[in-house]
Amino acid sequence: YVTANGSKSDRVFAPYSVFKGKAALSVDPFLPTFSKLTSGGVRVDRRGGIMMTFWPAHFALSATEVGSLISLGAKESCEFFHDPSMKSSNAGQVRKSLAVKPQSDGSGYMFSLSVVNNILKSNDRFSIPITAAEFAVLRTAFSFALPHIMGWDRITNQPQTSKDEN
Amino acid sequence: YVTANGSKSDRVFAPYSVFKGKAALSVDPFLPTFSKLTSGGVRVDRRGGIMMTFWPAHFALSATEVGSLISLGAKESCEFFHDPSMKSSNAGQVRKSLAVKPQSDGSGYMFSLSVVNNILKSNDRFSIPITAAEFAVLRTAFSFALPHIMGWDRITNQPQTSKDEN
Amino acid sequence: YVTANGSKSDRVFAPYSVFKGKAALSVDPFLPTFSKLTSGGVRVDRRGGIMMTFWPAHFALSATEVGSLISLGAKESCEFFHDPSMKSSNAGQVRKSLAVKPQSDGSGYMFSLSVVNNILKSNDRFSIPITAAEFAVLRTAFSFALPHIMGWDRITNQPQTSKDEN
Amino acid sequence: YVTANGSKSDRVFAPYSVFKGKAALSVDPFLPTFSKLTSGGVRVDRRGGIMMTFWPAHFALSATEVGSLISLGAKESCEFFHDPSMKSSNAGQVRKSLAVKPQSDGSGYMFSLSVVNNILKSNDRFSIPITAAEFAVLRTAFSFALPHIMGWDRITNQPQTSKDEN
Repeated sequence: YVTANGSKSDRVFAPYSVFKGKAALSVDPFLPTFSKLTSGGVRVDRRGGIMMTFWPAHFALSATEVGSLISLGAKESCEFFHDPSMKSSNAGQVRKSLAVKPQSDGSGYMFSLSVVNNILKSNDRFSIPITAAEFAVLRTAFSFALPHIMGWDRITNQPQTSKDEN
Repeated sequence: YVTANGSKSDRVFAPYSVFKGKAALSVDPFLPTFSKLTSGGVRVDRRGGIMMTFWPAHFALSATEVGSLISLGAKESCEFFHDPSMKSSNAGQVRKSLAVKPQSDGSGYMFSLSVVNNILKSNDRFSIPITAAEFAVLRTAFSFALPHIMGWDRITNQPQTSKDEN
Repeated sequence: YVTANGSKSDRVFAPYSVFKGKAALSVDPFLPTFSKLTSGGVRVDRRGGIMMTFWPAHFALSATEVGSLISLGAKESCEFFHDPSMKSSNAGQVRKSLAVKPQSDGSGYMFSLSVVNNILKSNDRFSIPITAAEFAVLRTAFSFALPHIMGWDRITNQPQTSKDEN
Repeated sequence: YVTANGSKSDRVFAPYSVFKGKAALSVDPFLPTFSKLTSGGVRVDRRGGIMMTFWPAHFALSATEVGSLISLGAKESCEFFHDPSMKSSNAGQVRKSLAVKPQSDGSGYMFSLSVVNNILKSNDRFSIPITAAEFAVLRTAFSFALPHIMGWDRITNQPQTSKDEN
């Protein structure tokens, strides 16, 4: 993973992938980065998240969006909007939205990623049905990953083996 | 964190923060301290908890208060009362209470911290709405943190790398 | 904890205790022991559990009894029977039972331990009310502890730091 | 466990076993294998799972099948079909199916493994009743194991003690 001093080491690739015909969804958590404080402690710098990949498009879920997904009721839906160019000169030019909607027959959810790019004049939509069993894997794995992407797994009583990991 | 012998080392800062207009709530677990026993084992000394910060006021949730929050039903409310000067000569002079109440439209909860200080003749109230998704993050992260603030994460079959961590 | 070769080292004491008047309940997980196999692996030897202490009486919950408690519905009750002298010449002389019953007002559960000792001609009963918040702590901490008392926390992808921990 | 370079080391045996008369069911997670990437990271190679053993027959649950079991409602059933010779010349000759059905009295589930072997002209069926408490152990332990069999427990902020574990 990317450590606080910028080196990449031992990045672990363990995506959970779902294939349905030509569509595929792959999910993979990414960790926060930490900064060393002059006081001797460490502080979360850039938050982690969960990367959802509908090849070739990506959508990075924040902790709160993960909270929304893991608490989604059987008949509830949710939608998240991202502007990948936010705070840059291209702000508002690319609009991504991820929608999760229950199937009418109760068999699971439809995940749809829409990417509208005003610069490239493109408008793409990626959809994949996720069964209730696959959604249970996502909910359990996301619940496991949530404290890690928040950095709370560093707050532990386990004896540390090294003082200078960052 | 604060170790049993009093030194502070590698304190990790990973607050989960929610900002709503001028209001902000930040939550952060803190660990128990351990004492070494002459028998060779270790014992939890001072319990850990979860610090809720409504700048500049703080409220430290105990394990049982965390249990109350993570089992809160969608239409239930709860309230905790603390006397930060308990067992000192100022007992009863400062009264803090944290109330968590469901929003009437089902969109989440209102968290309110009230601090009545008879010494300073002050009466402050801090309130922030927490969405259902943010509450799901709190519930999942608090459930993860609970065994850690109780010290149960030290009771593990993982091989220990060092015998003298305290 | 007690390691496979019988030495006690770094036993961690982190009981969760509830005090109600003169009654007290303390709960504390204990770990399984492992044996080294000639093949190079390790096998769980004696199972772990969760020790419930109603001073001075003890009741050690097995994994399946823990499963019963953590899945207990709001209006359900359960009862476990133990014979501490099972398979010895005193079998049947001491009978322990732990009953968990919901309070009629929905405020939590009553935990009662009954110990009938035909040798000492004694018949003791220890009872303590457990609030819904305290039960939520037990359910969350027991769910955390369950894989540890089963030994499943040893089955991990984390790099091991030592080959000879037993 | 089996490491990426093929050596077996420190395999941990910690099955959860249920005995009912002559029938027995034993469950045990197995870990994924990892490959080292030339980029310096590691990638999940062969997925892990949970091995269900009805002596002498085995059935290895995938992550998605585990998701199906842990989200099973009290009155729901599920069934999984495996062809152990899939993609070999014996494809279709052996058919295994695991069925999980709720007991009509609500006391738990019946787990049944059926193995039809056209080569040996055999047709075996293994069934064992699982109580609600035992199912709660399975659900909790499977939920704990799921991120491990997916390899997500490797994605952690904990300082690594060794760079060359594979």
